[in-house]
Amino acid sequence: MVFGKAEFIDRLNKTKKEMQSRGIDVLVSTNPANMNYLSGYDGYSFYVIQGVIVLLDEAEPIWIGRNMDRAGAVFTTWLGAENMMGYGDDYVQSKTKHPMHFFADQLIEKGAAKKRIGLEMGQDSFNVTSYLELQKKLPECQFVDASFLVNKVRMVKSDREIDYMKAAGEITVNAMKVATDLINEGVKESDVAARIYQTLIEGTEDYAGDYPAIVPLMSAGEQIAAPHLSWTNQRYKNDGIVTLELSGCVHRYHAPLARTIYLGTPSQKYVDTVNVVLEGLHEMLKTIKEGVTGDDVARSWNKVLSKSGVTKDSRVGYPIGLGFPPDWGEQTASIRPGDSTVLQKNMTFHILPALFQADSGFVVSETIRVTENGCELLTNLPHELVIKQKNTIFSKS
Amino acid sequence: MVFGKAEFIDRLNKTKKEMQSRGIDVLVSTNPANMNYLSGYDGYSFYVIQGVIVLLDEAEPIWIGRNMDRAGAVFTTWLGAENMMGYGDDYVQSKTKHPMHFFADQLIEKGAAKKRIGLEMGQDSFNVTSYLELQKKLPECQFVDASFLVNKVRMVKSDREIDYMKAAGEITVNAMKVATDLINEGVKESDVAARIYQTLIEGTEDYAGDYPAIVPLMSAGEQIAAPHLSWTNQRYKNDGIVTLELSGCVHRYHAPLARTIYLGTPSQKYVDTVNVVLEGLHEMLKTIKEGVTGDDVARSWNKVLSKSGVTKDSRVGYPIGLGFPPDWGEQTASIRPGDSTVLQKNMTFHILPALFQADSGFVVSETIRVTENGCELLTNLPHELVIKQKNTIFSKS
Repeated sequence: MVFGKAEFIDRLNKTKKEMQSRGIDVLVSTNPANMNYLSGYDGYSFYVIQGVIVLLDEAEPIWIGRNMDRAGAVFTTWLGAENMMGYGDDYVQSKTKHPMHFFADQLIEKGAAKKRIGLEMGQDSFNVTSYLELQKKLPECQFVDASFLVNKVRMVKSDREIDYMKAAGEITVNAMKVATDLINEGVKESDVAARIYQTLIEGTEDYAGDYPAIVPLMSAGEQIAAPHLSWTNQRYKNDGIVTLELSGCVHRYHAPLARTIYLGTPSQKYVDTVNVVLEGLHEMLKTIKEGVTGDDVARSWNKVLSKSGVTKDSRVGYPIGLGFPPDWGEQTASIRPGDSTVLQKNMTFHILPALFQADSGFVVSETIRVTENGCELLTNLPHELVIKQKNTIFSKS
Repeated sequence: MVFGKAEFIDRLNKTKKEMQSRGIDVLVSTNPANMNYLSGYDGYSFYVIQGVIVLLDEAEPIWIGRNMDRAGAVFTTWLGAENMMGYGDDYVQSKTKHPMHFFADQLIEKGAAKKRIGLEMGQDSFNVTSYLELQKKLPECQFVDASFLVNKVRMVKSDREIDYMKAAGEITVNAMKVATDLINEGVKESDVAARIYQTLIEGTEDYAGDYPAIVPLMSAGEQIAAPHLSWTNQRYKNDGIVTLELSGCVHRYHAPLARTIYLGTPSQKYVDTVNVVLEGLHEMLKTIKEGVTGDDVARSWNKVLSKSGVTKDSRVGYPIGLGFPPDWGEQTASIRPGDSTVLQKNMTFHILPALFQADSGFVVSETIRVTENGCELLTNLPHELVIKQKNTIFSKS
């Protein structure tokens, strides 16, 4: 087992407490990361409809999925056999039967036909048809939005979760080093991506590398302006910026990093920009500690920026941890002005002050754990622009 | 450009024709594969809300996404600058602003405030909150379900699409061979997965390998019963079944294959089961041609099975092609009894007669193109159980 039963019970109790405080009797959680958090379920089956049901007076959640995937639930969850319910294959992508009819049957069976039911309305994996079909079968239920209820419970990590994130961070650093070594004029982007993947999946002595929730993001040349494209079959050219954002993954926990490589000799103007961003990153890392808000952190960044000509209008960080494709972010907060999230000990964030301009793009980041007096870095790689001139590495910080 | 403008216009015209036949004035397509099909957009940004809008009297679709991703749209779509609309970062995972408000603004701007609007209600990536927020901003619109409208248009492939699927199939075969060579008693599952990924991403001389929409699915030992788990840090044991299902990906097009390896000497009973499944696969491949139905194909499979003791209650195939995580299937049909889909020339299917029992699990599959008189295999790998005894490969078909 990836986590002991006591840890799952603790998660369940926190979830129930949050449900009670919102007057929710029953939670239907369909987001794969939330399902994993509550039940342990870890299968690549989230292209079909599945979920876990939490009832306040039940000692375990109920896993519902395709019958074919019930065996995967047996291997990965902490649940008793009676709490793993598989629906028949005739429900899969059918024009007449919908998996939410099966969910409704289980809810009625459990006496929930007139209850107040929380649904993850704002998360993908609970689509509109699911909502309408569930409503149709449970006309006396009251449905309320509980989109980020479990995500919020997930924000403060246990020691075991932090251990997995550190192991993921070790893999991240290995992959980043492999990429940094390989990237040079004339090398094909996809060949670098292939070696990154190999390193991400090989993992460490102790842990297999799992598939990350976001693919390695790699931009070069003009495409620096586009942060969510990835490798092509083009070859790297001299005199250009290369950005990388990637994460190792251990038991679905992530610790991403972004770094930038310059092939050739950067202009003084570019180096000045780099130094502003690095100073901004360090100011944020100095600001983070238990009790400060996301807004405080964003302001420490903006204070550095305001003294320079550098501008950035997108968020500079987000909570990170457990994730399935397409996101490793927890989607509960964004480090930007106005964010009222109060940082607590053992919350974890990806602090990412990235600039995406074609001529002056620079990304650098850190995955951190909030502590009482500051923050702990969960990865171990210098914050710097890597400058590669004539196949030699110089570091500039 | 991955496809020429003429091909995009053809896709758009087919989509508009289908819209007209359903009385739909405006289509809001949010599924990443459908967005890619209509616009060319290919970024790993589908963890935020984005989409394309198709209006009957507009010559191009309108791309809407996060402002940060607009540069990615510039690089990957065929659209004019005026048809790429980015929303500000203050809409991202915000408690007050929702990206669908921005969609509504664009729809009003285009005169669609009282139109009949098709939404992909049954697909993830259009969640309930998106639906409710769009309704709130467009109270006079009539919303109708257009979940699989574009998916259906996508079913019949162009020659260029088939070329990409064949290139993907070449990568699939390379990765399957790498895996088959490596898997042996004592080898770590994650080390095999790492080499599979490396091969999938390296691609071919002509094409980079893109990230597949589904990760390599690898089961061994007891976990054979669980088809959607993947590699662990365990080592392969002798006297056991190993199943693999994986796909190369070229410009988001897939050609998956499943194969089974036996480490040791299988029992005669197991070999008999294998031969039934192989016969069933070949009967299906012989049945497939333009004009037959999914039901006809399923019946040819069941006819073989009925003569044996082998049973299977899940579908034996589905349409395949363009896909983003978490699915490479097109979700428009399932090869099973009762499926009324009429096969047309250049539809493509993953035919997957897989058994997932721990003691007798066997998977084998083929990706095919329907032709006038039969079908063309898009990959080139023998249909057989690979038996590995004492590190030597014997083939048994």
